[in-house]
Parts: sequence; C-alpha cells; structure tokens
Amino acid sequence: MTAISPVTIRRARRDDVGVIVGMLADDPLGRGRERLEDPLPPYYFRAFEALDRDSNIQLVVAEDGDGAVVGCLQLCILPGLSSQGASRGLIEDVRVATPCRSRGIGEQMVQWAIAEARAKGCKLVELLTHHTRVDAQRFYVRLGFQPSHVGMTLRF
Amino acid sequence: MTAISPVTIRRARRDDVGVIVGMLADDPLGRGRERLEDPLPPYYFRAFEALDRDSNIQLVVAEDGDGAVVGCLQLCILPGLSSQGASRGLIEDVRVATPCRSRGIGEQMVQWAIAEARAKGCKLVELLTHHTRVDAQRFYVRLGFQPSHVGMTLRF
Repeated sequence: MTAISPVTIRRARRDDVGVIVGMLADDPLGRGRERLEDPLPPYYFRAFEALDRDSNIQLVVAEDGDGAVVGCLQLCILPGLSSQGASRGLIEDVRVATPCRSRGIGEQMVQWAIAEARAKGCKLVELLTHHTRVDAQRFYVRLGFQPSHVGMTLRF
Repeated sequence: MTAISPVTIRRARRDDVGVIVGMLADDPLGRGRERLEDPLPPYYFRAFEALDRDSNIQLVVAEDGDGAVVGCLQLCILPGLSSQGASRGLIEDVRVATPCRSRGIGEQMVQWAIAEARAKGCKLVELLTHHTRVDAQRFYVRLGFQPSHVGMTLRF
C-alpha cells in the first residue's frame, strides 16, 4: 500500500513551462514529439501565452508540499449545442513526474478537473487516451469514466 | 454510385439553431438527450451565444444549392504545450440531415475542418465517436484518421 501525497492544484505560470515540457517529454509517446532543450524552444512559450489568455482553458500543475511541480493537466471548457446546450470538459496532457507516480497525484488532478467542469456547468467530461495506455484506461474507469468512444486522430 | 451534392460551408447563425438541434436530435444517441420543442428551450440559444463569441470555436453549417441547411459541425482550435506547442483541432457534433446522407456532405464538412485546422497551425485533428458508430469510424478512416485512442467519457 502506497502513501498518498497530497498536492495543491494551481494555475500554471510561465516559469513552469520547462518542467511541464519535461514531463510531456518523459513518456514513451511524448519522447519523439517534444524538444527538451536549454533554452527551451520559443514556440512552447508562445503556446503558453495563447492558452493562458484563453478563458476556456486552464493549464494547471500539481505542487507537492515542498513547492515542486509534480504533475500537470489541461482542462478546456467547451460550449456547444448538444446535450441541451451543455458545455463539455475536455481533459488533455495529464502527466505525473516519473518518480512521483502511484501516489494519487493523477487522481487528485483529475478529480479537480471533474469538479471544475461540474462547477462550470458541464454535463460531460471527455478525454482521449492512446490505445496502448492500458493502465491509464484502468485508472480513468476507476474514476468513473466509460470507454464509450473511439478516439480518432489525424496528424499532419 | 451516388451523386455528390456540393455544399457551402458557412458559420452558423442564431436562426440556424433550430435546424441544428433538429439534426442533433434525429439520431439514435441524440434522441434521448435533446429537447426539440417549439419554441426551442432558451438554453440552446444561450449555448449558441457562448460558442459564437469564443474565437477558438467555429460552429458551421453546410448549405445546399437551395440555401437549406443540411449538415453541421463544430471545430474547436485548442492551444496547448504538447507536440512542440502545436494547437489541436477538435471536431464535434458532426451531423448530416437524414434525407441528405450518402451524398458526400459529411466529407465536405470534415475536409473543411481539416483544412481550417491546418490553416490555424494545428498539427493534429482529433474527435471522439461512439463505439457503436461503426459506419462513422469507417468514414473517418477513409479520410485519413486513425482509431488510435480510446475516447473516455464521464456524464453527470
């Protein structure tokens, strides 16, 4: 039985971008997609600025008791006509720092996102997880998600 | 061999909301979720106003040669840090009016969304389709999508 590490969920700041990209890159699928260089390529900061000024998007980080960033998650609240005009919450880019896994950090972040989406009037929260991420799928099912859809992607 | 009906894709207007909700409701999954009443419940118009003022969201309709609305699609352009700070396009609520199916209207709408997402700098377009919508999955594969992900949903 592993101890739970309580974390604080807070909005990401510009000076978190390096740590966040580090977590995105430290992943079997992310490794080939990111460029973790020092200094970090400027497009990451441009993307941060774009999402930071979008009132429907919240990029958050999980901070441990020492103030270290140990996880990240992006929540988008998307208005739409379907389901009686209910907004939808879309969860993306959930990552927990490798040495901090299995301590309930991902669960605290996803529960935060579910609560936030409910508070914003969503009737549905959705996410795509790669079909090879079997542990992630089990994790989401445990939190109440259904593997109800096929997530289709087209990369350019 | 069925003829292709060329359509014009244009931004949805407030006076299209009734037709769009009609298409959302005329669907095995949508039937139980929508309320197609006259007058239409006001929450649909509130949702339209919310999405219409969101610069990252485009709700579009397909108009046939007679100016009739025969399809709809919502495209969200979502900034994010992953994939080197590339935005993602999310396609939602794709519908074609029942009597107008199999005439290439869905394909014209989805191709419009792909081109629009590319033009806005996206490197990825994604969507969730219910696992029972086998024809839809075949349709998206034909347009170049991969069934690479599991789409997980949590409804409140």
